[in-house]
Amino acid sequence: MKKILFFFLAISCCGSLAAENGYECWLRYTTADKSVIKSYRQRIQSITLFGTSSTIDAARFELSTALLGLLGKTIPGSNSIRDGSVIAGTTSSSILLSKNITVSDLSQAGTEGFVILSKIIDGKNCTLIIANSDIGVLYGVFHFLRLLQTAQPIQSLHIISAPRIKLRLLNHWDNLNRTVERGYAGSSIWNWHTLPGYIDQRYTDYARLNASIGINGTVLTNVNANATALTRPYLEKVAALANTFRPYGIKVYLTARFSAPIEIGGLKTADPLDPAVRDWWKQKADEIYSLIPDFGGFLVKANSEGQPGPQNYNRTHADGANMMAAAVAPHKGIIMWRAFVYSSENPDDRHKQAYIDFTPLDGKFADNVLVQVKNGPIDFMPREPFHPLFGAMPKTPLMMEFQLTQEYTGQGTHLVYLAPMFKECLESDTYAKGEGSTVAKVVDGSLDDHSLNGMAGVSNIGADINWCGHPFAQANWYALGRLSWDHQLSADTIADEWVRQSFSNHIPLVRDLKFIMLSSREIMVQYMNPLGLHHIMGTGHHYGPAPWVNDLSRPEWNPVYYHRADSFGIGFDRTKSGSNAIAQYKPEATELWRDSNDCDERYLLWFHHVCWNHRMRSGQTLWTALCMYYNMGVDRVSVMKIVWEKQKPFVDAVRFKQVSMLLDIQYEEACWWRDACLLYFQTFSKQPIKEPFVQPTHTLDYYKQLRFPYAPGN
Amino acid sequence: MKKILFFFLAISCCGSLAAENGYECWLRYTTADKSVIKSYRQRIQSITLFGTSSTIDAARFELSTALLGLLGKTIPGSNSIRDGSVIAGTTSSSILLSKNITVSDLSQAGTEGFVILSKIIDGKNCTLIIANSDIGVLYGVFHFLRLLQTAQPIQSLHIISAPRIKLRLLNHWDNLNRTVERGYAGSSIWNWHTLPGYIDQRYTDYARLNASIGINGTVLTNVNANATALTRPYLEKVAALANTFRPYGIKVYLTARFSAPIEIGGLKTADPLDPAVRDWWKQKADEIYSLIPDFGGFLVKANSEGQPGPQNYNRTHADGANMMAAAVAPHKGIIMWRAFVYSSENPDDRHKQAYIDFTPLDGKFADNVLVQVKNGPIDFMPREPFHPLFGAMPKTPLMMEFQLTQEYTGQGTHLVYLAPMFKECLESDTYAKGEGSTVAKVVDGSLDDHSLNGMAGVSNIGADINWCGHPFAQANWYALGRLSWDHQLSADTIADEWVRQSFSNHIPLVRDLKFIMLSSREIMVQYMNPLGLHHIMGTGHHYGPAPWVNDLSRPEWNPVYYHRADSFGIGFDRTKSGSNAIAQYKPEATELWRDSNDCDERYLLWFHHVCWNHRMRSGQTLWTALCMYYNMGVDRVSVMKIVWEKQKPFVDAVRFKQVSMLLDIQYEEACWWRDACLLYFQTFSKQPIKEPFVQPTHTLDYYKQLRFPYAPGN
Repeated sequence: MKKILFFFLAISCCGSLAAENGYECWLRYTTADKSVIKSYRQRIQSITLFGTSSTIDAARFELSTALLGLLGKTIPGSNSIRDGSVIAGTTSSSILLSKNITVSDLSQAGTEGFVILSKIIDGKNCTLIIANSDIGVLYGVFHFLRLLQTAQPIQSLHIISAPRIKLRLLNHWDNLNRTVERGYAGSSIWNWHTLPGYIDQRYTDYARLNASIGINGTVLTNVNANATALTRPYLEKVAALANTFRPYGIKVYLTARFSAPIEIGGLKTADPLDPAVRDWWKQKADEIYSLIPDFGGFLVKANSEGQPGPQNYNRTHADGANMMAAAVAPHKGIIMWRAFVYSSENPDDRHKQAYIDFTPLDGKFADNVLVQVKNGPIDFMPREPFHPLFGAMPKTPLMMEFQLTQEYTGQGTHLVYLAPMFKECLESDTYAKGEGSTVAKVVDGSLDDHSLNGMAGVSNIGADINWCGHPFAQANWYALGRLSWDHQLSADTIADEWVRQSFSNHIPLVRDLKFIMLSSREIMVQYMNPLGLHHIMGTGHHYGPAPWVNDLSRPEWNPVYYHRADSFGIGFDRTKSGSNAIAQYKPEATELWRDSNDCDERYLLWFHHVCWNHRMRSGQTLWTALCMYYNMGVDRVSVMKIVWEKQKPFVDAVRFKQVSMLLDIQYEEACWWRDACLLYFQTFSKQPIKEPFVQPTHTLDYYKQLRFPYAPGN
Repeated sequence: MKKILFFFLAISCCGSLAAENGYECWLRYTTADKSVIKSYRQRIQSITLFGTSSTIDAARFELSTALLGLLGKTIPGSNSIRDGSVIAGTTSSSILLSKNITVSDLSQAGTEGFVILSKIIDGKNCTLIIANSDIGVLYGVFHFLRLLQTAQPIQSLHIISAPRIKLRLLNHWDNLNRTVERGYAGSSIWNWHTLPGYIDQRYTDYARLNASIGINGTVLTNVNANATALTRPYLEKVAALANTFRPYGIKVYLTARFSAPIEIGGLKTADPLDPAVRDWWKQKADEIYSLIPDFGGFLVKANSEGQPGPQNYNRTHADGANMMAAAVAPHKGIIMWRAFVYSSENPDDRHKQAYIDFTPLDGKFADNVLVQVKNGPIDFMPREPFHPLFGAMPKTPLMMEFQLTQEYTGQGTHLVYLAPMFKECLESDTYAKGEGSTVAKVVDGSLDDHSLNGMAGVSNIGADINWCGHPFAQANWYALGRLSWDHQLSADTIADEWVRQSFSNHIPLVRDLKFIMLSSREIMVQYMNPLGLHHIMGTGHHYGPAPWVNDLSRPEWNPVYYHRADSFGIGFDRTKSGSNAIAQYKPEATELWRDSNDCDERYLLWFHHVCWNHRMRSGQTLWTALCMYYNMGVDRVSVMKIVWEKQKPFVDAVRFKQVSMLLDIQYEEACWWRDACLLYFQTFSKQPIKEPFVQPTHTLDYYKQLRFPYAPGN
């Protein structure tokens, strides 16, 4: 039995809440809420697990450890059914379970889902957790424990849950030297040097945390790939990780450097149509699968930002993807080919290029290929419209790529709950097949009938003790898992779950923390990128504002490219009088964007170049509205801080102080965004920053000369 | 009151020892040993602390938190004396204390020391912890707690303890980008980007851990210095750290990049005699002290391995040091000037160069300068003779530099307790003033009457949850602190303390772990560098063996420079028939080194080039002895593993498994050293590796082609 261990606090220190270092994330298993613990103790008196796999062992250990923490006493395992039995297993492992579930319920659970039933068996109150697979049992156990952690009632349960999306992945932008690209939580957790011999406890706890939210795959390496990861010594290290994750239903994937046949294969070309190259990938795949029989496949960034790819040989993305697809297909592997492309040679609006490059390839990809698409057409900005590719490639499975790490949304110092952003995208209507053709339906395969489908989050995990840096950043990891399982969950529900598990069920605390979380994304948009502004951040590190930058080697890397501020106004005309990027959407989808006088103001400057005196719906001018939003965002950070400070009696002292300090930093940085941006845009608007708006304390030159040579993640 | 918090386990999980993540190091405060707990509870019933400083607050919190863990109940604070009172303070804060201590005892405590007395006051059994300063009180509290953690009797206490060495420092080779040079425990713990606003809980726990072992200073930055650390934004960050450490008696220091006046000052020169340069340093010092009134001073690596220095301007080391000394002297700061020099232009034996460069400068350094000297003349090798500078510069305070991080002694994967190495050096007799002129007496200032004196350890700390990577590496940090307080403590005593605090007082466990620890250094020497071999490690990363390397840009970087293996034999002749480095020592000190037929065999190849058939004391040939030691080292790692495995019932499962896995890796790496070195040396000896010695499994070419592009710390 593979022992699973984790660390938890119990002793109250000097009358205050025991210090928490955040390591356990949402799997804290502290004593259950007063309102429910008596009922729980009555209804949970023994554990019966059927099956002998390492997955069932994981489930057993999780149950027993969690219940000890939640109920304050050891709940024994038992072979016999009694009042308060919790019984878990597959129907093939237990006749009892197969007798107590309907065919209908079980079939709805599918391969990974589960059913949780309250049943009276022989006069005894039992809770049954039933699935078609051992991993479904584990997921069901985690769901049951979540009910307990969130003080939910557990009588009369009849839960059927199956994931809506098949591939639910993290993407780690981790390098082999343990730096993390766009990482703000310390170094990479993968200690390659000591693998395969040393299996860090963190690897196991990583697997537990991911399994608890249904994540079933992880890409271990940076999309800016390193061919060394595909060499034998590294494959053996990867295999050790795969072995650790397997009981938790998590497959490993790697990024594939397109030029690997040259760099490590000694070939002279990486042309995807070259037989020697095709053979090299085939043999490489065979080698990988000999070590890792359930290896997931490759994630590829090609012909993007300098990465090699098929276009270097005048081949298409499909040619490249299909070559790799052929190599892994015999082993049931898949290829995720990223659509994040914008060419340094193409002067057309960056917004348009992925669509132009990829839509002609619709239907040309092999069956085991997904095209992975960022939520929006630029690059994870605080607000983007949904990516026009969604709905435009019906014959191809399109996989969602969200970014959990806060590269553009506050990095390591801002409290920003991103689920509202994810929901905004998922609920967007592409109108590809009429009304209701949401991005979610594209991604879950239901719109175009793709059984292969997926969602990925660029990880915010690092070696910091609390995994994610900012204590609240864990919520974004949590949210990605929950949404990949069920994209219909609301951001509110997910926040509610997370707060209750990560802090407590104390109702005022839950209410206040949710308030902070659910408003945080819009607040961040306001003090950084109001009214559809985007990509005006600092160069390289992307830390802080730098809307003035205009001298980078590629024009579409310059902030000025995106805001286009001039004496007339500001914003990027993407309508037909401009780049016409808007035409890549179905007309119905753009109703609220097309007319600058009638535009959803959240996207105004995304789609329109608008004069400084443009009259907003409120009657204000654009310039005044800009000043207002920047100031409002800053003020609302103060409100976040005030609400947080009220939580002092209800939160452990260490995390309370951590978040307080970070909110102070967030406030300072929000002021910095406000002041630097308004001072700069003012040089074009030539209008004052009027009362009641705050006068900047520094000059524009002050902000322009700030340097951060060691900002993290770069 | 600055809250001090830390994390500790209490609940036993499923009947096994609660999982420990190592974060608490030796400050675990688990329940006191059965044999003493009753007596402790009787003798410790209340806490009385006199004084109101943040240091006294730290002492109070440490006492109450520790006693709660050790005794299992809250020990209340009290203003009145009762049976079982623990009373701590300075005599100036408490008349009661001043009445209960003799002038003699108190004066022996000095500025930082303490007295611990068992006294009956008004018929009540009390324990008094008395000092001349609040920091002495804190040190006394930690000492008292150590007694409890190590199950020592606490009746009839009469302890007087004062540090023998004034400056007791860690040196962090941490870079501003959070990499750690020669670090094997993750990234730097200093999160510069979020300082000064975000004060990580780790900074406070770092201070506690250091205070508990008497460390009173820390150099925050790499000796390969970065001038950016001296710019205002960074000084503010450093000040925030200084504020966090101050209550714990820890001063901060920085490394000073000699060319900073050019790099950040805009000057055209860094000539230490140039008035503008001198003025720049003066102003920089004034700036630092305006932010950090008790800033310790600078540590400088100059004209060494490419670092800029006074010799770039034809000035001496003393010129450079004295310039900086003048800048900090008005603020009571000090300069630590490193003697680690060996010139790329000087073909003479590297062993000799520091002595040649520095002895002429004896007496030329300003009063507030120490010259910091590595324990040996090459560079922290598994075994080196003591540095010939010790005893050769009587007019200059020489500060010891030990290396805790295991750059050459196993890096992150080998269990090596280094205190025996430190003791070996400290107890070496320089004969500078006749017999008994030990290195320890040079370093503690008693030989040559220097009140300014110090000892430093190059830190092995990083952002890993357990601070040091290998669970046993913490013992080296611990040992450095204890030895800097009292260099007369034995390696055995220190190991005993550490094991009891870090694991338990279970006698068989203590005995076995000490056995492992105390033999580990010699075992490592045997499988890496037996018989005085040295500097035969891999290039750049220094990971693993590479005795064949002969093509680096500087000859004295090549392993072949050090072993000089040829058809005749092996070893470096440092006697008068060779480089005569031996002449830099006093003749009496070299009795056991001079004659190759009578040499202390641990140094044979350090001082002699000896033929392969040289007859050892055992009767074996040199070649056979080499084979024997390499094999013996490997076999003894197996023994370490066997002894460790026996500890399973007594050690928590996570740390047990961690160390098991690491011992397996250590065994593999020891075999690698053995096989690669013997195969290579065999090409010169042309003799077989005979039974019973193990035949290498791979060829020499196999070992030569191994590459580790991402080995840590490089």
